[in-house]
Amino acid sequence: MEESKYEKRGVSPSKTDVRKAVSNLDKGIVSNSFCKIIPDVMGENKKSLFGPSYCNVMHADGVGTKAVLAYLYWRETGDLSVWRGIAQDAAVMNVDDLLCVGATTNMMVTSSIGRNKYRIPAEVLKAIVEGTQEFCENMAAEHIDITFAGGETSDMGDIIRTIAVDATVSARMKRNEVISCERIQDGDVIIGLASSGKATYEDRYHSGIGSSGHTSARHDVLKHEYAEKYPETFDAQMPAELVYSGSKDLTDPSGVENLTVGQLLLSPTRTYAPVIKAVLDNYRPSIHGIIHCTGGGQTKVMNFVNNLHVVKDHLFDTPVVFKMIQGESKTSWQEMFQVFNMGHRMELYVKESIASDIIKIARYFNLDAKIIGHCENSSKKMLTIESEYGTFTY
Amino acid sequence: MEESKYEKRGVSPSKTDVRKAVSNLDKGIVSNSFCKIIPDVMGENKKSLFGPSYCNVMHADGVGTKAVLAYLYWRETGDLSVWRGIAQDAAVMNVDDLLCVGATTNMMVTSSIGRNKYRIPAEVLKAIVEGTQEFCENMAAEHIDITFAGGETSDMGDIIRTIAVDATVSARMKRNEVISCERIQDGDVIIGLASSGKATYEDRYHSGIGSSGHTSARHDVLKHEYAEKYPETFDAQMPAELVYSGSKDLTDPSGVENLTVGQLLLSPTRTYAPVIKAVLDNYRPSIHGIIHCTGGGQTKVMNFVNNLHVVKDHLFDTPVVFKMIQGESKTSWQEMFQVFNMGHRMELYVKESIASDIIKIARYFNLDAKIIGHCENSSKKMLTIESEYGTFTY
Repeated sequence: MEESKYEKRGVSPSKTDVRKAVSNLDKGIVSNSFCKIIPDVMGENKKSLFGPSYCNVMHADGVGTKAVLAYLYWRETGDLSVWRGIAQDAAVMNVDDLLCVGATTNMMVTSSIGRNKYRIPAEVLKAIVEGTQEFCENMAAEHIDITFAGGETSDMGDIIRTIAVDATVSARMKRNEVISCERIQDGDVIIGLASSGKATYEDRYHSGIGSSGHTSARHDVLKHEYAEKYPETFDAQMPAELVYSGSKDLTDPSGVENLTVGQLLLSPTRTYAPVIKAVLDNYRPSIHGIIHCTGGGQTKVMNFVNNLHVVKDHLFDTPVVFKMIQGESKTSWQEMFQVFNMGHRMELYVKESIASDIIKIARYFNLDAKIIGHCENSSKKMLTIESEYGTFTY
Repeated sequence: MEESKYEKRGVSPSKTDVRKAVSNLDKGIVSNSFCKIIPDVMGENKKSLFGPSYCNVMHADGVGTKAVLAYLYWRETGDLSVWRGIAQDAAVMNVDDLLCVGATTNMMVTSSIGRNKYRIPAEVLKAIVEGTQEFCENMAAEHIDITFAGGETSDMGDIIRTIAVDATVSARMKRNEVISCERIQDGDVIIGLASSGKATYEDRYHSGIGSSGHTSARHDVLKHEYAEKYPETFDAQMPAELVYSGSKDLTDPSGVENLTVGQLLLSPTRTYAPVIKAVLDNYRPSIHGIIHCTGGGQTKVMNFVNNLHVVKDHLFDTPVVFKMIQGESKTSWQEMFQVFNMGHRMELYVKESIASDIIKIARYFNLDAKIIGHCENSSKKMLTIESEYGTFTY
């Protein structure tokens, strides 16, 4: 297979290397779970006579190269608030992964920041740390208890050109409340939760972009003058024609009212925690699987099913941000679906009979939701995406 | 004050910026604890009628630029095993911080690896991931339960020149077993646990170096030809005369039998977990404070005391690795004590009456220990180091 533009930029949507690296590791106590589930190390409840009733999960993720975009935007505009968005990105990339195993509260989060001290001053660190705290407070208002347990900031200019922002989340939950993808089955419908919009618990419009695919998004959309102005924002090993190869300025209008191109791309990753909590509080035993469409985009589910044909044939309209990225990059739509969420970043696999109830819950939070597809028996695993841009199989 | 060489290299021993960043954050439920202690989010035991009996702690730290040294050594020799050492470094930098609050078992650990995919292949990731697992297994043999809960590896060449390796550890413990530094007092003696040697639970000699001060150590010791050969291993913003300004080749003999200079500097951070566990199992209520001398070196304790004069006047002989660094760099001894542990990386503050018992426990593990100093009342906080190189106050 020809190396994709994505891979030429030194990033991998399929994470082949990572899969190799962890191939010999224990997979945890629940098969096919979105995050690894381990015994109740925290609660010492793992050796109960009556079988383990609790389990633990701990998860690490970060904002990747979205931090570079924040750096560019902050350098160009002086606007420190983008770093608060980055803090939300880092937290949500973890919290929303944990939602997929059914953990919706009682979490701890830490942040890890690596910086180039010559380029990142104290006020940026402060904005990120306080942004993490702010996210926890916003979630507390929705009865989701996420405690900010602290973090680490290290100066390592010999490694970090600008800044790297990661977070880690821990949770303890009842063993019988864990959701795995084991029950995703023939006849299930797929409810997609929109990635763009402004929910009741949000104070601004979200463009739909998460914290994956940002190496591509940034280079494909922004114009080449950023390469000369900010050589610290890319790897000189990248083929020159792929570096900031777009036509846009960060402050150009984006096509979404009141948002510049920079703001559209930097829009923080929306959390689905309040919605998923409400869904699970009411329908937990009926949820067959939850998939967070981050790295791998709309193909993410393929890591969690076997002998199933997943058909996505009623997707949301593509949000402006993804149309802009495709328009600038001319990336094939087939690849776009492998990199970006393209309209919904969270999907629930359920029997059709409860679909409308779940959609109602999402809409109560002013979050758009609908049936975007279904699952069928198949001799091998397969994904078909029928979109306005054509039909693609994976 | 003149900017130190350390600061000119874009690193900060005093972490002023970080302190600014977190100044508005909640400090946790235990004052003056080495790590932030939070309520029992994990166990939901925080609202017990009888007062909270459990608490949680979650901690993030990494190997910093020791990863760059591993990269250099691996590139020069092809020896993948150094990456297993790096995995141990990342885990121990966290686990040993947690020891200081009295957590000695029932931990979960995750790893976060950010890599430049052009430079770091899958087998390096595999060595780090498996090294983390191996560390957990070694600790299990000592009845210290650390479960490897997974991790994240991300490709972000636009940020990372080579590789960044961090880890995060969570623990839950009884509230009344938490050790803070609040009880460090007049009359306490300080027991230092040697940072170099080979304990009963270790399979090789440890040079004494931890995972801090490595930006200095690497540039001060290694010769300039590495700058031309591996420009990806340093920040071009660093003043040129500070880049690889030493005289050594990685494969030169180190002065320690069977170890090259590279191996001496890369020697994994020793964990004190088995020793501290045995000490706390027997003497927990009598331990007034435990300090892990990482960033800040021998001055670390200054962050945790008030109105006390800490006198360190019987330090261990300086291990070869620190003598080599000083010999190459001509760094003042006053600064050396601020950056490196210089002989003991863990210290226990206790009444003199139990000191010999604690020293016996350490020696049972073939780990050298002795009284290295004491504490006196003082109108302000103060640290005096009386060493073979002179007397320094901080």
